[in-house]
Amino acid sequence: TFIRGMQTVTLIPGDGIGPEISTAVMRIFEAAKAPIQWEERNVTAIKGPGGKWMIPPDAKESMDRNKIGLKGPLKTPIAAGHPSMNLLLRKTFDLYANVRPCVSIEGYQTPYTDVNLVTIRENTEGEYSGIEHLIVDGVVQSIKLITEQASQRIAEYAFEYAKNNQRASVTAVHKANIMRMSDGLFLRKCREAAEKHKDVKFTEMYLDTVCLNMVQDPTQFDVLVMPNLYGDILSDLCAGLIGGLGVTPSGNIGANGVAIFESVHGTAPDIAGKDMANPTALLLSAVMMLRHMGLRDHAKKVETACFDTIRDKKVLTKDLGGNSKCSEFTEAICQRCGIRL
Amino acid sequence: TFIRGMQTVTLIPGDGIGPEISTAVMRIFEAAKAPIQWEERNVTAIKGPGGKWMIPPDAKESMDRNKIGLKGPLKTPIAAGHPSMNLLLRKTFDLYANVRPCVSIEGYQTPYTDVNLVTIRENTEGEYSGIEHLIVDGVVQSIKLITEQASQRIAEYAFEYAKNNQRASVTAVHKANIMRMSDGLFLRKCREAAEKHKDVKFTEMYLDTVCLNMVQDPTQFDVLVMPNLYGDILSDLCAGLIGGLGVTPSGNIGANGVAIFESVHGTAPDIAGKDMANPTALLLSAVMMLRHMGLRDHAKKVETACFDTIRDKKVLTKDLGGNSKCSEFTEAICQRCGIRL
Ligand SMILES: CC(C)[C@H](C(=O)O)[C@@H](O)C(=O)O
Ligand SMILES: CC(C)[C@H](C(=O)O)[C@@H](O)C(=O)O
Repeated sequence: TFIRGMQTVTLIPGDGIGPEISTAVMRIFEAAKAPIQWEERNVTAIKGPGGKWMIPPDAKESMDRNKIGLKGPLKTPIAAGHPSMNLLLRKTFDLYANVRPCVSIEGYQTPYTDVNLVTIRENTEGEYSGIEHLIVDGVVQSIKLITEQASQRIAEYAFEYAKNNQRASVTAVHKANIMRMSDGLFLRKCREAAEKHKDVKFTEMYLDTVCLNMVQDPTQFDVLVMPNLYGDILSDLCAGLIGGLGVTPSGNIGANGVAIFESVHGTAPDIAGKDMANPTALLLSAVMMLRHMGLRDHAKKVETACFDTIRDKKVLTKDLGGNSKCSEFTEAICQRCGIRL
Repeated sequence: TFIRGMQTVTLIPGDGIGPEISTAVMRIFEAAKAPIQWEERNVTAIKGPGGKWMIPPDAKESMDRNKIGLKGPLKTPIAAGHPSMNLLLRKTFDLYANVRPCVSIEGYQTPYTDVNLVTIRENTEGEYSGIEHLIVDGVVQSIKLITEQASQRIAEYAFEYAKNNQRASVTAVHKANIMRMSDGLFLRKCREAAEKHKDVKFTEMYLDTVCLNMVQDPTQFDVLVMPNLYGDILSDLCAGLIGGLGVTPSGNIGANGVAIFESVHGTAPDIAGKDMANPTALLLSAVMMLRHMGLRDHAKKVETACFDTIRDKKVLTKDLGGNSKCSEFTEAICQRCGIRL
């Protein structure tokens, strides 16, 4: 059912604590009067024609239609040949960019303050090509595939993102001193994009140097763009700097306007159903989603309510250092959104 | 000239601040009565027969004879086709293991305390194979080569190192969920080595998880062993945790008993010759060398003198937060070694 002025988002609650934290997000969005209506879908892979794993057609159809999705954690069923759900979703929707803003949360203590950076990871190729061979007994090769097209797409996206989000600089992270051709191609495409976007500062840095400088002073970084594996590493490293996956949002940008926002933590089966989960990562992912949809005021309202609640320290879930339930933490955020539900 | 009871070590002072910090180490070793005599050599690459870059024959001969080397920073001359000196040395002496103990230095403030871990990096293959192809226009592949032999050698070395250095556990770092065959082979060899060394605890962890956990709590790690590129990243990351390359020692273990210990920072041309350099990284590398040679008492004496001087905070070089010259800092360490030079 179509409600006037509302945009429909596909909601994939996921497994374990997924449904609880999804409920939390829905309540907070209601309190903030975010003009979003939800269409719930299950994406757990099924075997399609020809025995190929695929996500259920009604989930695919919903995403294709709504373009925007919000997703909780998924467990990958242990079945022979069952693919990682992450990889299957990336493939299904050609989610070529993984974007993770890492911003220090005031009141949540980590060894760092004032972190404010964004990692942008190429999400479709590189070391994740899946092509491997046994050359002779005891000798294996894995192929890292870098294409001009994918490199250009991600480089272009990084600069567009920087502009749309008032960010001053983009750093390309690479090992072109070692992988001259592949990382060299990636780097060249970044340089070309930099030429087109002269209003954004561009720098290049070796991955090892970035890692070293990152743990010494993360405040020197702004937007970072890199090939797949480097992004896998750096995005998790940076999440660690601000408190881990429980507080880090993530967005996946795909072709044809599709985008899926998700919490990247696990399903936490040990606390599932106990009203103990921390919805922050999914909530902040939903905030990213609002910004992506151009709903900046609602994004700001929800984000501020979340950060204020954490800074206030009165109502926090256990992992954030408090004693409150998920529902109590959610209620505290709702109140700050201006409405008591 | 052979002096009884003395072992000869090839000293490669290197470029920039290299000679100054090498002099510092020699003075401190003298003060500590370390039974080492030095044979100085220059390793800057020359063009050999057939136009191939090689290190000078007298340097090669010295290393082959002495087996043990200590090396300052080298600049890679900017000449067409000139190889990275690091890569050339690794190749020349088959330096298959890069070992970096990262230990928090009391009195030198970083966001972390009580870091005490060792990264062991496979140094000869993986992403550093140098094999790359242009498949079709705009499509490049780089080949990551993993062999049973090299994986077994590094895994075996990691466990031997753990035992010889009273370390309780070894963690294999990998992405075998993505690179099933190559990282899978590496991991299998680690598991086999673990079977042979049941007195050392063995765990396996994804690289991204290690990075995340590392910046949240590095004290949970002990010995980490990994393929080449992952080691490049993690060894620099871990150096960052304890204060950077200026205070991090490094050792390279090669075939046939060869080993080269080195500071991994740069040549710092801006302060070269000004008596301002910090010799700590080279000194702690020389301490690793003493331990490697079985000279544990001398190692302990020098290490303690260095750490005490830093903890004391009275005589420190600029980068360590003080106002003293390299020679003054060196003298302070010498005094603690029990002899005034
Ligand atoms: C689960 C795994 C396939 C995945 C990856 O390596 O990309 C994960 O680490 C991630 O970052 O989403
Ligand atoms: C200079 C470069 C070839 C080298 C590497 O990538 O291995 C450096 O980063 C290192 O760790 O020694």
